[in-house]
Amino acid sequence: MKTAKVAIVGFGTIGSGVARLLVEHQERISRHAGRPVQLARVVDPDLSRPRNITLPKGLLTDDLSKVTGDPDIEVAVELVGGLEPARTIVLKLLESGKNIVTANKALLAEHGQELFDRARKLGRSIAFEASVGGGIPIIAAIGQSLSANQIQSIRAILNGTSNFILTQMEEHGRDYAASVAEAQRLGYAEANPAMDVNGSDAAQKLAILAHLAFGTKVNWKAIPRIGIDTVEVADLRYAKELGYSIKLLAVAKLVPEGLELHVSPTLVRQGTPLAEVRGAYNAIRVIGDAVGQVFFHGLGAGQMPTASAVVADLIDTVVGRTAITFHTLELWSNDRRTLVTARDPDSVPGRFYLRFNVDDTPGVLAELAGALGRHNISIASVIQHETEEEADGVVPLVIMTHTAPEGAVRRALDEINRLSCVHEGTVRMRVGGSEETHR
Amino acid sequence: MKTAKVAIVGFGTIGSGVARLLVEHQERISRHAGRPVQLARVVDPDLSRPRNITLPKGLLTDDLSKVTGDPDIEVAVELVGGLEPARTIVLKLLESGKNIVTANKALLAEHGQELFDRARKLGRSIAFEASVGGGIPIIAAIGQSLSANQIQSIRAILNGTSNFILTQMEEHGRDYAASVAEAQRLGYAEANPAMDVNGSDAAQKLAILAHLAFGTKVNWKAIPRIGIDTVEVADLRYAKELGYSIKLLAVAKLVPEGLELHVSPTLVRQGTPLAEVRGAYNAIRVIGDAVGQVFFHGLGAGQMPTASAVVADLIDTVVGRTAITFHTLELWSNDRRTLVTARDPDSVPGRFYLRFNVDDTPGVLAELAGALGRHNISIASVIQHETEEEADGVVPLVIMTHTAPEGAVRRALDEINRLSCVHEGTVRMRVGGSEETHR
Repeated sequence: MKTAKVAIVGFGTIGSGVARLLVEHQERISRHAGRPVQLARVVDPDLSRPRNITLPKGLLTDDLSKVTGDPDIEVAVELVGGLEPARTIVLKLLESGKNIVTANKALLAEHGQELFDRARKLGRSIAFEASVGGGIPIIAAIGQSLSANQIQSIRAILNGTSNFILTQMEEHGRDYAASVAEAQRLGYAEANPAMDVNGSDAAQKLAILAHLAFGTKVNWKAIPRIGIDTVEVADLRYAKELGYSIKLLAVAKLVPEGLELHVSPTLVRQGTPLAEVRGAYNAIRVIGDAVGQVFFHGLGAGQMPTASAVVADLIDTVVGRTAITFHTLELWSNDRRTLVTARDPDSVPGRFYLRFNVDDTPGVLAELAGALGRHNISIASVIQHETEEEADGVVPLVIMTHTAPEGAVRRALDEINRLSCVHEGTVRMRVGGSEETHR
Repeated sequence: MKTAKVAIVGFGTIGSGVARLLVEHQERISRHAGRPVQLARVVDPDLSRPRNITLPKGLLTDDLSKVTGDPDIEVAVELVGGLEPARTIVLKLLESGKNIVTANKALLAEHGQELFDRARKLGRSIAFEASVGGGIPIIAAIGQSLSANQIQSIRAILNGTSNFILTQMEEHGRDYAASVAEAQRLGYAEANPAMDVNGSDAAQKLAILAHLAFGTKVNWKAIPRIGIDTVEVADLRYAKELGYSIKLLAVAKLVPEGLELHVSPTLVRQGTPLAEVRGAYNAIRVIGDAVGQVFFHGLGAGQMPTASAVVADLIDTVVGRTAITFHTLELWSNDRRTLVTARDPDSVPGRFYLRFNVDDTPGVLAELAGALGRHNISIASVIQHETEEEADGVVPLVIMTHTAPEGAVRRALDEINRLSCVHEGTVRMRVGGSEETHR
């Protein structure tokens, strides 16, 4: 049987993990693929950096044409990351006849249309299980296993870095900065964790899932997103007092008005499965009209979990399943009818947790309540504690709203943040509803 | 594009659910299948029973030859259940050129070898996602998405009926008989729930998962299994006191000596994901050497969750993925090398929870401890409470053992149960170890 030759482009952490699986477990991978699978090339500009795998001699090169020029190589794994040169590399690989496996959610969220169009024209496929949820097979689940269903909602923890930081803050009372430092020390956060902590990474992944589940083409930048970078330990304490944990949730929910999409730190009722997701884990709860709710939990990042998903895609591609799936899913295709359009983000309702740092003077609560009232936002409860912060005359004030449209809340906060009695650091989070329950 | 005609054989609860999806959501199913999918025949001996679906006129028949004799029908869904006539029907359908989709775990666990051999010889496929875990895509996950991994263990709640009963007992303090009655009233248990509550159903499903994940051919009857039918509310109270919930766990675990397999009510540490599975839900925790642990949770039975899995298989079969998977997995094949053999069940170690009903007289504990000691089983802790049961001179005595081989424990219990001071109703359960944690 013809050997399936594969190449890895991008020999960083994930790339070395994929190489390890291909080299050390070639026999079991070949068994699942139905024919021998052989790592034929690894491309990276850095030829000397030490990696945790010794490649067979001559495999590593800094010359992409060693892959594009080798007609025996059937599949190329793009693990360069980021937008450029990853985009150009994938286009070159497609042009040279390679099927693509990628873990690059940023690339798909930004250039999915262009890359999938090109792949279709060239009769090639792109597989991307590793782009969302690390080792959790969520792409296969939504794209194939749940395909008898109309998906109704997806609620997910898609960013392991943020979840690790929130868990540190919740369990050890470490402040945000110290928790970020701890995440960096353990390799869960990069030197610049901005995309992780500001919700962008989760929004990119949500855009991919929403496209897969609902056929909704959405620019990830259009998804309202709030990061965890304004969350303080005090918020976790207040949330706990109210019976909640705080998680960075990515939500896609089908309603008569369209598809609601948002990424936000969210108060999730304690004891529910999403609230119990700790550390660098990811979790995804999908509701389908036939299956009911299905919950997936696993490591959402890291070398070997991500490599596990990449190699599963490699096997699927070599064995021929990816070509079928790629063809029928018609992702990012102009031919595919838009099934559901995204709802105007400003109109998406929610209950909100708001924390303000305000002057400890009379009349402040009345001023804030007045501003909320002018935007038709009604208050469900107020928490004001005496804290050590009171020493400098500034106190935290927590307000839980009843259901209100996100746009109204945002506009009210713009107004409130301009008040002289309100200081920097206003926090806005969503509050999960009764749909959190798992019974 | 050629219409894919499909037939349903067995028009009970699941069958009507599958028919509902095919009739009411033909457009979305056809979209995922890449071509029109049409329900062409439904076969059932009972033509008059009311179902929650109105079939197009002329579809329902009691004559299987309307399917076997129609060369346009490509796929047949076997939902007859049980061994015969299901086995004969599947063989006839295969001989007539149909690909098979089935939810019948008993049939696969018992006749998998014969049916898969026949399908291979005839160039047909058998898909069986719905046979384990209802709507949870665990067959696809283990067979495809995690195929880069050596699976190391599977710990699962695979019988929703048992889990519902245990949850009733734990949360409402209802006794076993009343909880079974409640499960029957709500349709979670059949009139004769023996296969569910005695662990047979879970053992059949475990045999399928073990074959898929480890290539181990095992007769499900050879898997040591203890049911929940001896568990009393008192056991749930004792377990709670010790920090545990009780779940009927099916476990397959790779150790140097081979594959450990068992089904047993198990004390699972509170707060861990498996302990939090309530009601009729199923859950499966898989550990792979690359992916780490992945946890799946969803409805393990019921009309629409099971129909969701059946229709996903139908789509996979129509679109051509099943043929590939079926070919590469080589399930129940004589050609496939046995990768792991099952470990001698008697040698599988565990910590055990034992509850005896004993005479409330001096020396009883010494007698029991002596018997355990003779089998080299050492005692970790003893619980003896004063209870109302003391009134008739019989008291419960709970002993937690240190790790001991299952065979030794069974033999010690045989000896102890013959003691005159020991009454009927001895309970044996496994105690989950540190591997329960989810961090």
